[in-house]
Amino acid sequence: MHMIHIKELFQHAEQYYDQTIQVCGWIRSIRDSKNFGFIVINDGTFFQPLQIVYDNTLDNLEQIRHLNVGASLIISGRFIATPGAKQPFELHAGRITIEGTSSPDYPLQKKRHSLEYLRTIPHLRPRTNTFQAVFRIRSLAAYAIHKFFQENDFVYVHTPLITANDCEGAGEMFHVTTFDLDHVPENDQGRPDYSQDFFGKETNLTVSGQLNGETYAMAFQNIYTFGPTFRAENSNTARHAAEFWMIEPEMAFADLKDDMTVAENMLKYIIQYVLDHAPEEMTFLNQYIDKELLNRLHHVVNSDFAHVTYTEAIELLKKHQEQFTYPVEWGCDLQTEHERYLTEQIFQRPVFVTDYPKEIKAFYMKLNPDGKTVAAMDCLVPGIGEIIGGSQREENLELLIQRMEETGMNTENYDFYLDLRKYGSTRHAGFGLGFERCVMYLTGISNIRDVIPFPRTTGNCEY
Amino acid sequence: MHMIHIKELFQHAEQYYDQTIQVCGWIRSIRDSKNFGFIVINDGTFFQPLQIVYDNTLDNLEQIRHLNVGASLIISGRFIATPGAKQPFELHAGRITIEGTSSPDYPLQKKRHSLEYLRTIPHLRPRTNTFQAVFRIRSLAAYAIHKFFQENDFVYVHTPLITANDCEGAGEMFHVTTFDLDHVPENDQGRPDYSQDFFGKETNLTVSGQLNGETYAMAFQNIYTFGPTFRAENSNTARHAAEFWMIEPEMAFADLKDDMTVAENMLKYIIQYVLDHAPEEMTFLNQYIDKELLNRLHHVVNSDFAHVTYTEAIELLKKHQEQFTYPVEWGCDLQTEHERYLTEQIFQRPVFVTDYPKEIKAFYMKLNPDGKTVAAMDCLVPGIGEIIGGSQREENLELLIQRMEETGMNTENYDFYLDLRKYGSTRHAGFGLGFERCVMYLTGISNIRDVIPFPRTTGNCEY
Repeated sequence: MHMIHIKELFQHAEQYYDQTIQVCGWIRSIRDSKNFGFIVINDGTFFQPLQIVYDNTLDNLEQIRHLNVGASLIISGRFIATPGAKQPFELHAGRITIEGTSSPDYPLQKKRHSLEYLRTIPHLRPRTNTFQAVFRIRSLAAYAIHKFFQENDFVYVHTPLITANDCEGAGEMFHVTTFDLDHVPENDQGRPDYSQDFFGKETNLTVSGQLNGETYAMAFQNIYTFGPTFRAENSNTARHAAEFWMIEPEMAFADLKDDMTVAENMLKYIIQYVLDHAPEEMTFLNQYIDKELLNRLHHVVNSDFAHVTYTEAIELLKKHQEQFTYPVEWGCDLQTEHERYLTEQIFQRPVFVTDYPKEIKAFYMKLNPDGKTVAAMDCLVPGIGEIIGGSQREENLELLIQRMEETGMNTENYDFYLDLRKYGSTRHAGFGLGFERCVMYLTGISNIRDVIPFPRTTGNCEY
Repeated sequence: MHMIHIKELFQHAEQYYDQTIQVCGWIRSIRDSKNFGFIVINDGTFFQPLQIVYDNTLDNLEQIRHLNVGASLIISGRFIATPGAKQPFELHAGRITIEGTSSPDYPLQKKRHSLEYLRTIPHLRPRTNTFQAVFRIRSLAAYAIHKFFQENDFVYVHTPLITANDCEGAGEMFHVTTFDLDHVPENDQGRPDYSQDFFGKETNLTVSGQLNGETYAMAFQNIYTFGPTFRAENSNTARHAAEFWMIEPEMAFADLKDDMTVAENMLKYIIQYVLDHAPEEMTFLNQYIDKELLNRLHHVVNSDFAHVTYTEAIELLKKHQEQFTYPVEWGCDLQTEHERYLTEQIFQRPVFVTDYPKEIKAFYMKLNPDGKTVAAMDCLVPGIGEIIGGSQREENLELLIQRMEETGMNTENYDFYLDLRKYGSTRHAGFGLGFERCVMYLTGISNIRDVIPFPRTTGNCEY
């Protein structure tokens, strides 16, 4: 017999009233009286649960009334509208089949558990309201990103995870090896003999797919990546994970202005998609996690993002120097406190800060005519600060090589990247969106460990 | 001025006839005559190129006529219908701006290059027809998979890449470490002291997200993963890569029959989506890569997949023993030759082979009542053999532990997995689709290195 999803019941209830249907799910609560009882089940398809009513005509009444929270059931019965009751409808059980029992030591009882406690049971926490909301939104946001780019004819590119690029960030990379770490083979110089390793060379986990992504933008014009990225940073904060997902679009024949237009449209699209497709989850998070959440997201969707240069931003911030722990001056990296002050207090809406000093930005960013700043942009949003960082890329071969040499890079390792400037180079631009940062923003969740199914952080790699 | 994509011109040509428009792209070929010339450009948005006609009124005529293949241009001019000509329309250039030149040593000249040669320039090969087709189809297929599952209310789950699970397959896993391999710290026993490593324990790259995925299926009912997977297998074949992407759906309250229904619907959906959204690319591949490609895919979309048990399949194959290099008998693993004979010769359509001997399948597969076979399924398709492997999972705690002990596993490391059978266990099933295998099937490409942007194989990790 066909199983009806609880989502379907909530969306098309009238089609099922007074019919015999079959549903399944896990017990959220059970309340037994003398001749009847109530079971609330969730089947994972919808945020709201379904109430089941049973009476003493059940064959297996004794087993049913002794069930524990967490047990899984298949129930067939009559679907009844309950106008005036707390819930819009309920199911009058004719038969309840026990798929799997639970026990009184089930770690998720019907009470509020702290996020910290739930972090210790990452395999069970998606069964709670909070994590049902967070991880359904994570899924919807991921799909919204694909949908946005595909509808705009961007090509999705899988850039490699294992890389031989010895990027500047090498100190923060994870090594990948098939060496037996008990016996790392040595070469003549007493160094690890990577010629014997799986790839015949030293390899690491990627910190960004951008350089690879650029090669595809020079073929398909508009591309995006969406894949895992790694940082072996020893920082035990609420915002850092060792393994996270990044979205990195790259556009040929595009400048910094085009870049910002795409970033703004994308952010608004993701937010609107989640608001449209998870209203129950968003209402719950707004009530229990962050009471400003919906206001903030609606505000972002309805704002024209502001634009300010870094130089102008520094002047604006200097007038409020007394507000900050870290003083601002031209040349400094903006701290989160500065970013939030700009977007929350000064502009009171999302703002793009552009044209940063070249010294605090990456080698591949396009040098502005002033010779001092680069065509970079950071998108700052109220409540969080930076959510997107991007730039126009240096498309001029000589300037790019010059900048690589200034920053002490070995240009020989970047032949493929330099080829893009030799053969049909063109203005191009892109940006990076940290997916977890985005999910935190969409859900109001303040610790990155609570938006990743099985988070990997310093000293933590469970399951 | 707004840039019009060549895709837009092919789809809505009539809207642009006799108008002045601006396009951009890279030169595929250039032919210069005394007073005029032709340039064919591709802008990456569409498989077909656009023909540009210029004459001697151009300001920069001398520069233009000396351009090389690969140069990037922005062209404005009048868009003209050319009824009766080879191409349906062309652009009469009023102004041609050179964004970036190319040179006579550009590695992609207007001639056919071998796939082997193109493998040596993975950063440039997406600019060729073959790889424009392959990688656009890869992108479309990835999106079709997301679309299929999201439209069926599956939740997308990002299972972890770095794992501490010491799976049976450990010998084929890549180690992940931040140790300086010059000086791996040792503990009292002279073994690597993993307590000093980044995660405080030994970690590897995942070979499958299934076990983690099951934890989310027990919360959301229907979930899927789509992410990178790694095998440190030292096999230098046309079908193996060290880094590849996998799709692993998992469904609670579902049995093997449900599993096969989803797998069949998914495969047909992906194929139909690609046929609908990349007709030019598919026609090209059918012409130049595999002349049976379209026939084969149409046949799969229009077939009801057959079903046969492993035991029946062995009986059928035994009648054709003389056809095979490897003899078949009950208990043996099916080789590709057997799989292809079943689907191509015996059934002449896709076929699910079910209920394999437990000895040749994984520990988590559900034991059948016969005590000898498990509720596994492999989906075999003409032209390739196995494309999907799946099973119903053992949901019974005692049977699962027994099977783990039989296969020599340490159950202590699987507490989280066993918890799923203690608290609200239910019948559930899932399968795995290797994404590259799928793209090979969709494109007719026979080497996995040609469907991955930057392939990682034994001894090969470029860029």
